[in-house]
Amino acid sequence: MLIYGRNVFYETLKFAPKSVRNIIIQEDIHDKNIISIIKKYNISYKFRNKKDMDKLVNGIHQGIILDVVDYVYYSFEEEISVGRFFVLLDHIEDVHNLGAILRTCEAAGVDGIIVPKDRCAPINATVMKTSAASLLRTKVIQVHNLVQTMDMLKKNGFWIVGTDMDGDDFKTIDYSGKICLVIGNEGSGMSRLVRENCDFIASIPMYGDINSLNASVSAGIMIYEVIRNRK
Amino acid sequence: MLIYGRNVFYETLKFAPKSVRNIIIQEDIHDKNIISIIKKYNISYKFRNKKDMDKLVNGIHQGIILDVVDYVYYSFEEEISVGRFFVLLDHIEDVHNLGAILRTCEAAGVDGIIVPKDRCAPINATVMKTSAASLLRTKVIQVHNLVQTMDMLKKNGFWIVGTDMDGDDFKTIDYSGKICLVIGNEGSGMSRLVRENCDFIASIPMYGDINSLNASVSAGIMIYEVIRNRK
Repeated sequence: MLIYGRNVFYETLKFAPKSVRNIIIQEDIHDKNIISIIKKYNISYKFRNKKDMDKLVNGIHQGIILDVVDYVYYSFEEEISVGRFFVLLDHIEDVHNLGAILRTCEAAGVDGIIVPKDRCAPINATVMKTSAASLLRTKVIQVHNLVQTMDMLKKNGFWIVGTDMDGDDFKTIDYSGKICLVIGNEGSGMSRLVRENCDFIASIPMYGDINSLNASVSAGIMIYEVIRNRK
Repeated sequence: MLIYGRNVFYETLKFAPKSVRNIIIQEDIHDKNIISIIKKYNISYKFRNKKDMDKLVNGIHQGIILDVVDYVYYSFEEEISVGRFFVLLDHIEDVHNLGAILRTCEAAGVDGIIVPKDRCAPINATVMKTSAASLLRTKVIQVHNLVQTMDMLKKNGFWIVGTDMDGDDFKTIDYSGKICLVIGNEGSGMSRLVRENCDFIASIPMYGDINSLNASVSAGIMIYEVIRNRK
């Protein structure tokens, strides 16, 4: 997987230097700091011109591209035995939303993010960039079946809190136990079976005409509500 | 200004039909509902093929493009005399963030959004699409000088609440009065002079390593905190 950008470079070398296979630097960039960091971790690197680098990635690379190993998902069984707050993404499709949600989860100290194997935005360079490399500091768990996963969570003492319109005001729900928060798809919300398997449905009150928030914004509001009285 | 997409079409015709000058429909789309809405408002329309329409806009138009008048900003003087909660954007540069923030402001019933004339993301088709057409239901006010604007707000009884790290926990601040919430730039946060002119600095606590949220996510968390005890 190719990831890129200055911030992504610094964060990756800081938090996950072992994931980096190779680094490409733009030949006319003379940044001693970058070279010294690469040498510190003994990572192989080469220089290329901007034109060649532009062809490699579909975004603003700022003169630095990293070839990293594919993301290694965490184990559901291991993480639920230790974590107390998970976020389950019910088919988030937009990579920018996925990135912003990972960033919020990292900042809020969420124990893990559960995503379905199918119909979830891919973990790619855009997610790395949008999440400000939070991806490297959060635990993403991939599962095959969301409903079975919810059953397993319940058996392990978790309360499942879905988010949707026409539920209870999100401020009135008790989040003090083990919580799995479910964030629905950008357009269609939670899928029917996922919704039916929630213990509570939390709604963020709306006072306008449009009546929906960006998925990463409502995730942010809900995540901070859950941790409000926990930390 | 050209805006596009099905949702944008329906929202624009619902909330601001007078802003539409002309509509272009893809010739192979036979949607009686769309035509009947256009006829109801007596708006001129024409058919074009997909290829020609693809050239007109830089995004997924879903077979419908609207030519609308440029956005007309609201008057600062008029709005501050009636509003009680404003959001001031200190140089938000990303159009997706601007769109998501407008959408949150609309949902939360914020009285107006203040943006500087220079160095703010443009109000364009992407903002329309990202904001789910919330742009049409919010009052955006353009000002020349943010610091002078903050002075005027203070003279009119507003408390200015900035958002940044190393301020007070955002949950401990009293938001019961007239409030102007300041959201800083994605990369650099609030500018120095703007920060110095805030009455309070609110911080969203961070428990991870990255220590920053996406601008639209932190705006969402803060906006819902302000209205928490108001509505």
